[in-house]
Amino acid sequence: MELLVRYLDRSNSISSVTTPDVVKEEKLRDDLRYYFMSPCEKYRARRHKPWKMGVQILKIVMITTQLILFGLNNQQVVSYNEETTMAIKNLFLKGYSGVDEDDYCVAVYTQHAVYDSLFYVLDQYSQLVQLSVGPISYAEDEDGKLLPLEICKEYYKKGSAEPSDEVYDIDAQMESVCMSLDPKSAQQWRTLNSSFYNLDFYRLIDIKITLQLKGINLQTVRSRELPDCYSFYITITFDNQCHSGKVKIFLDIDAKSSRCRGWKISGTAQKNTQYLLVFDGFVILVCLTSAVLCTRSIVLAVRLLQRFSRFLRENYNRKVCEDDQSEFLNGWYVLVIVSDILAIIGSILKMEIQSKSLTSYDVCSIFLGTSTLMVWVGVIRYLGYFQKYNVLILTMKAAFPKVLRFCCCAGMIYLGYTFCGWIVLGPYHEKFEGLSLVAGVPVLPAER
Amino acid sequence: MELLVRYLDRSNSISSVTTPDVVKEEKLRDDLRYYFMSPCEKYRARRHKPWKMGVQILKIVMITTQLILFGLNNQQVVSYNEETTMAIKNLFLKGYSGVDEDDYCVAVYTQHAVYDSLFYVLDQYSQLVQLSVGPISYAEDEDGKLLPLEICKEYYKKGSAEPSDEVYDIDAQMESVCMSLDPKSAQQWRTLNSSFYNLDFYRLIDIKITLQLKGINLQTVRSRELPDCYSFYITITFDNQCHSGKVKIFLDIDAKSSRCRGWKISGTAQKNTQYLLVFDGFVILVCLTSAVLCTRSIVLAVRLLQRFSRFLRENYNRKVCEDDQSEFLNGWYVLVIVSDILAIIGSILKMEIQSKSLTSYDVCSIFLGTSTLMVWVGVIRYLGYFQKYNVLILTMKAAFPKVLRFCCCAGMIYLGYTFCGWIVLGPYHEKFEGLSLVAGVPVLPAER
Amino acid sequence: MELLVRYLDRSNSISSVTTPDVVKEEKLRDDLRYYFMSPCEKYRARRHKPWKMGVQILKIVMITTQLILFGLNNQQVVSYNEETTMAIKNLFLKGYSGVDEDDYCVAVYTQHAVYDSLFYVLDQYSQLVQLSVGPISYAEDEDGKLLPLEICKEYYKKGSAEPSDEVYDIDAQMESVCMSLDPKSAQQWRTLNSSFYNLDFYRLIDIKITLQLKGINLQTVRSRELPDCYSFYITITFDNQCHSGKVKIFLDIDAKSSRCRGWKISGTAQKNTQYLLVFDGFVILVCLTSAVLCTRSIVLAVRLLQRFSRFLRENYNRKVCEDDQSEFLNGWYVLVIVSDILAIIGSILKMEIQSKSLTSYDVCSIFLGTSTLMVWVGVIRYLGYFQKYNVLILTMKAAFPKVLRFCCCAGMIYLGYTFCGWIVLGPYHEKFEGLSLVAGVPVLPAER
Amino acid sequence: MELLVRYLDRSNSISSVTTPDVVKEEKLRDDLRYYFMSPCEKYRARRHKPWKMGVQILKIVMITTQLILFGLNNQQVVSYNEETTMAIKNLFLKGYSGVDEDDYCVAVYTQHAVYDSLFYVLDQYSQLVQLSVGPISYAEDEDGKLLPLEICKEYYKKGSAEPSDEVYDIDAQMESVCMSLDPKSAQQWRTLNSSFYNLDFYRLIDIKITLQLKGINLQTVRSRELPDCYSFYITITFDNQCHSGKVKIFLDIDAKSSRCRGWKISGTAQKNTQYLLVFDGFVILVCLTSAVLCTRSIVLAVRLLQRFSRFLRENYNRKVCEDDQSEFLNGWYVLVIVSDILAIIGSILKMEIQSKSLTSYDVCSIFLGTSTLMVWVGVIRYLGYFQKYNVLILTMKAAFPKVLRFCCCAGMIYLGYTFCGWIVLGPYHEKFEGLSLVAGVPVLPAER
Repeated sequence: MELLVRYLDRSNSISSVTTPDVVKEEKLRDDLRYYFMSPCEKYRARRHKPWKMGVQILKIVMITTQLILFGLNNQQVVSYNEETTMAIKNLFLKGYSGVDEDDYCVAVYTQHAVYDSLFYVLDQYSQLVQLSVGPISYAEDEDGKLLPLEICKEYYKKGSAEPSDEVYDIDAQMESVCMSLDPKSAQQWRTLNSSFYNLDFYRLIDIKITLQLKGINLQTVRSRELPDCYSFYITITFDNQCHSGKVKIFLDIDAKSSRCRGWKISGTAQKNTQYLLVFDGFVILVCLTSAVLCTRSIVLAVRLLQRFSRFLRENYNRKVCEDDQSEFLNGWYVLVIVSDILAIIGSILKMEIQSKSLTSYDVCSIFLGTSTLMVWVGVIRYLGYFQKYNVLILTMKAAFPKVLRFCCCAGMIYLGYTFCGWIVLGPYHEKFEGLSLVAGVPVLPAER
Repeated sequence: MELLVRYLDRSNSISSVTTPDVVKEEKLRDDLRYYFMSPCEKYRARRHKPWKMGVQILKIVMITTQLILFGLNNQQVVSYNEETTMAIKNLFLKGYSGVDEDDYCVAVYTQHAVYDSLFYVLDQYSQLVQLSVGPISYAEDEDGKLLPLEICKEYYKKGSAEPSDEVYDIDAQMESVCMSLDPKSAQQWRTLNSSFYNLDFYRLIDIKITLQLKGINLQTVRSRELPDCYSFYITITFDNQCHSGKVKIFLDIDAKSSRCRGWKISGTAQKNTQYLLVFDGFVILVCLTSAVLCTRSIVLAVRLLQRFSRFLRENYNRKVCEDDQSEFLNGWYVLVIVSDILAIIGSILKMEIQSKSLTSYDVCSIFLGTSTLMVWVGVIRYLGYFQKYNVLILTMKAAFPKVLRFCCCAGMIYLGYTFCGWIVLGPYHEKFEGLSLVAGVPVLPAER
Repeated sequence: MELLVRYLDRSNSISSVTTPDVVKEEKLRDDLRYYFMSPCEKYRARRHKPWKMGVQILKIVMITTQLILFGLNNQQVVSYNEETTMAIKNLFLKGYSGVDEDDYCVAVYTQHAVYDSLFYVLDQYSQLVQLSVGPISYAEDEDGKLLPLEICKEYYKKGSAEPSDEVYDIDAQMESVCMSLDPKSAQQWRTLNSSFYNLDFYRLIDIKITLQLKGINLQTVRSRELPDCYSFYITITFDNQCHSGKVKIFLDIDAKSSRCRGWKISGTAQKNTQYLLVFDGFVILVCLTSAVLCTRSIVLAVRLLQRFSRFLRENYNRKVCEDDQSEFLNGWYVLVIVSDILAIIGSILKMEIQSKSLTSYDVCSIFLGTSTLMVWVGVIRYLGYFQKYNVLILTMKAAFPKVLRFCCCAGMIYLGYTFCGWIVLGPYHEKFEGLSLVAGVPVLPAER
Repeated sequence: MELLVRYLDRSNSISSVTTPDVVKEEKLRDDLRYYFMSPCEKYRARRHKPWKMGVQILKIVMITTQLILFGLNNQQVVSYNEETTMAIKNLFLKGYSGVDEDDYCVAVYTQHAVYDSLFYVLDQYSQLVQLSVGPISYAEDEDGKLLPLEICKEYYKKGSAEPSDEVYDIDAQMESVCMSLDPKSAQQWRTLNSSFYNLDFYRLIDIKITLQLKGINLQTVRSRELPDCYSFYITITFDNQCHSGKVKIFLDIDAKSSRCRGWKISGTAQKNTQYLLVFDGFVILVCLTSAVLCTRSIVLAVRLLQRFSRFLRENYNRKVCEDDQSEFLNGWYVLVIVSDILAIIGSILKMEIQSKSLTSYDVCSIFLGTSTLMVWVGVIRYLGYFQKYNVLILTMKAAFPKVLRFCCCAGMIYLGYTFCGWIVLGPYHEKFEGLSLVAGVPVLPAER
């Protein structure tokens, strides 16, 4: 930036002669000086009102409000899913303590306990409607027929020869036996296919029970919105593939939002939703304005740069160096534009969700969240206009590469330690059991 | 302060001539110099005994003593409330583990368990007197009549049409059905309104049981003080508004101190209390003295400033700059006066509480606590009189704005992170569930 | 030390003339220079072998060995006491979970549970010999008579008038009713004084059961040492003084080592003990030597100082300044002497304990521990002889007062925060409940 | 390195004369300069392609891949062992909570509970085959005979005289009574040697039950590998040696991999294993290449040093100083060679394990882990070629001795604190119970 500064400074000293060329040069100098001013100085110089800054402040307020509204809504959905998961685990798993161990729900150690847990699932399933507190019921297919429970057991095949009493003879091939149970006849499950429930534990790999339930999130009814219905795809796995004498029981739930059938909800209006849609539209408008203003600023800056470089080339036969060029491309504007685009996409997704035509909360929250993060980080730019903050920001800029370099060196040692610790200490200490544990990276569970 | 310093220094060099005007100037110089001395130097210069400092030291000792006495008393009340809460939860909640989960006390997952918990409350209530270890009994109204237990269930209204077996037909309107149970006839609750206990779970929003008990804190009797009586307003809520299959049971207690009725306590004297009241009076006296002394110092300082500025205006035609003016307003004196006022209000409240005419422990403790905090912070001022400490304090003063500026920048990023983390990671990880959790702010429970 | 240094430096330049006086001065200079040498330089200068340093190294090894031996022995006693405490709590407390809550063992909330817990204690006591796994039995008095169990209940006195059904009439006076139960007739406790077991809960303050058992620590028999016998003074308290509806049950055990009676242990020799006694004696000898050597060094230094100051006074008429004087009093020697004295006292106590004539493990361990701490800290002195370490130590010396000053300021704010946090937030958050908790000081339990 | 630098610099200035001697000198200079270049500069100077660097990068990738493959395999074995341990503890220990307390599994406090736990072990053992979920069965000796369960109880001998009712008379000598139980007749254990089960608790030291089971890790069958069989040597100890009234029950399992007998597994191929063996062979090849290249570099460097020192001796009669000599021995090369040797040994061990002729996972993982750690640390060297990183590395080199020195001082104080804290506070606070706990060193459990 030295050349630029020198150029601007010199301009003040030799401004006595006023040929047309000098006028043009003076004009350029003025424009350049104006370009590098802060909003405050611009106002003082040309009475230019800081529209852009105003839009940004308005945007911060609106985007944050929108995010909080969406988050609160989202939280309700999440808590419904969580509570239903909890309720289903408590209904179907015998001896469930309320907390999952490691990754499985319950572990059993005796043949008797395996049978007990298995029959408990079937018993609870057959009495579901009398048991459950919530409006959870058997799911139906398109024709309104109740979907059956599927129970499959996977075995290693028996070897060819008839095994003697002591010798276990198995084949590496696996075979699978399944059975399905209609909800209506579920009460008589004991009498149907009773031979199915004899398990050869030494060959057994796993038992999988898959069933499908449906539920309804009535919370929204209170705020006069239409409720969401859910289908729960439940898989209960008795996992014996380790053959260690410990059978781990897993219960996985996959919740999908679906159209409500079999429910008649009267008295809900869409008023609230309409206000929200209007608000979202306004947010999109503000973001568009902000993006347009920033694009315009970038375009103007590029044009100014072209004028300046042409001037230098013609009059002094010098090129604008790269450092000076980069001064013209304001990184903050790019940040604002990116955040605006994200916010607009997020808002559109939000409107779709609000009007129940989409259910991808996750994608929407990533867009809205990232844009809000960027908007807040963008505030730092305005702090940079105050002299003293600027020093701070410049210092941080200078220190950054050194810190990065140090992290790089430390990273190498860290990687070596991670691999070595995992392999050498892994078998002896819990803290070194998995690669991610040694590395200290917390693994996010797929779905709580 | 430069002007001031220069002025004071110059005074020493040209003090040879002694016209009346010079005498006056010399007087002012002396007063100014004296004003900026530490107590120690003042004593050496004019044998002025540091009364103010003595009063401050006495105040620290007395206020701290008073705070500890009040705190110990307060702790007794708090522990009584806590233990009673615990006892009531253990009495009325079936399967209460002794610790609240998240914010609710117990969660149940089956219809059977809901009925069990509900009937358990009623059974325990009807046998209360035979069960409870402490002197907890049914509350009475003004006329001595026992107050009844209220039990309300809130429903979504049924839809207009008669619902078929499979179709759930509800209205967004809510309706509420209540019943009250007299303690005397509580034993026969099963026979009274037995139809009330049939719950339509798919429509049920919540069940609220409100009851009122009374207790007595007899601890104080041992120290010969009159005991406090308490009314406990208990609300037990069976919360099904999420309809997720998990009914959360809340138990909230609102304790209010009240006049003891139905108890005759003989043999308690008020001696202890009288000594305490005298002590409190003495504290108020000391604080008043301290406040008066400090106010006087401020007044004197302002007068001195006026004299100094008039002198400068007349003789040198210069104004005292703002920096120098602020030197005359001693911030420490303001701190002391504020803390004195708080301490006086707190002490008066404490006396009222002691004489059982007020029960607002909270307000009183805020006043007393804040004043004690200020008094101790005020001690730092006296450390500032020692040369070396002063350097420390000045360094801290200088570094403060930089630290603040850094916090400001970090705060922006932090805010962005908080919103983004909450919305994006919230559904996947417990640590990001609530806004306050992401922000790392511990939420104070309303009442333990 | 400047004067001293200058003096020593000058000595080298003007040593040409050799009058008797000069010889004497030269001698003093040599002695002074020698005095401030490190052991290594001393060896090079006068072939003086570093006996003192050798003794110190030997001392470190011996004292650490002794401490570890004593500690291992101590640990055995501690673990016996702990396990017995655990066993007794599990025997006498109904529903004991294995961990104490806050400070009490168990809490009960109903009248029924209080009676149950009370009768459980008596039942278990009466069957003690058939129940306990360890050789725990009823204690006897001097004449061999079994000591009885004492059970006392404390009440508020009834008021004068006959109380009506609803009105509770009590007096602030307390009264106490006791009963004692002979171990032999303990089986019939239900029939004896059966009216005693009717408790008026509204007046009841507490019930105290005191009993005395004896046990024997047979662990030492395996290492051919005589075993220790123990008397356990057990107090079980049912605490209702808060009258909050929660009765807290405390169990306190006071263990005292006592002479073994009723046990005949054959085949134990005292060989091991004798070797230990010889070792302890040797430690005492080494410490004595070390103490004598250091005392001698101090005496020599003081004499040298006297010579030096006399010389300065006579020849130059100057006084040795205080800084230089303090250079002659070597703080390390003082540290060594103090640690030696502590080690000697500790060793003597240890010998007494070894020969079973004392049981004050605590006092002995304080003496031995402190002396070992000092001996290890003393090693830093030898590191100071290496040039580079010295810089480190000097830097730390210089920084110390600043750190202290900062702590002083911080301490004031901290004190204020502690008091304010306790009184204002105490009732709302667990972390601020007690003064010690706010201050962050962990309270050592009296006896685990 | 100053001499060297000076020498190299000077070379440029006086290179005008070109006698044969000068040519030789010029050659040496060139070689020296070339030797101290980075790979990048070497390439620019002599178009020397950086083979060595390429080999290193290939090595990093391959060794890390190998380590991860081995680690995943290892993890499977570890998890099988862990789960089996858990299963066995749950099968044989009555009231096992799933977590070990301190170091024992369960603690019992009454005679009745000891008998219960003991008989539970025998009952479960006799029904083992009907109980266990996994293919865990009684172990056999070489001849196929089932190995019996051994149960031993250790006592203090009775004293000579007949003890009276109250007097306990024991001898320090210990005696041991054993009994063995055949799996086949285990069902009648109650009738066999029934007198054995009368325990004199006051003399009892411990009861040891040793039994042997066998299991099979079928996990590998799914990936078409042969499964490993295991023998489990189980020791259950009822520990009463403290005689404190608390009997601690330990269960130790020693798992040994053994040949599978009594199992016929068909359909497993060794394909996967063969690919792995080829990969391992390739890793060995790469490591050998890398080691050879580095050795060659070291040899060349030593020769260059010899040439240089001879030249200096002959022409300038000066010796190469030690600092300059050490510049020629590249520490990185030594690191690479050591890591290569470790990797080769580790890979050979891994191949042996893969082909089921060895089971020492531990030794192999130490070799592989250490070599991987070294390889990653070695990457830092290449970072050193970039100017800016070099500064960082040099700074760290310079600061290292100071840090070490500080640690030394702190270490002394720390040692003193450790000993003192252990002995003085040990009996009063859990945190100071063991030496390792005070020192803050986590103790690795022998086998999870």
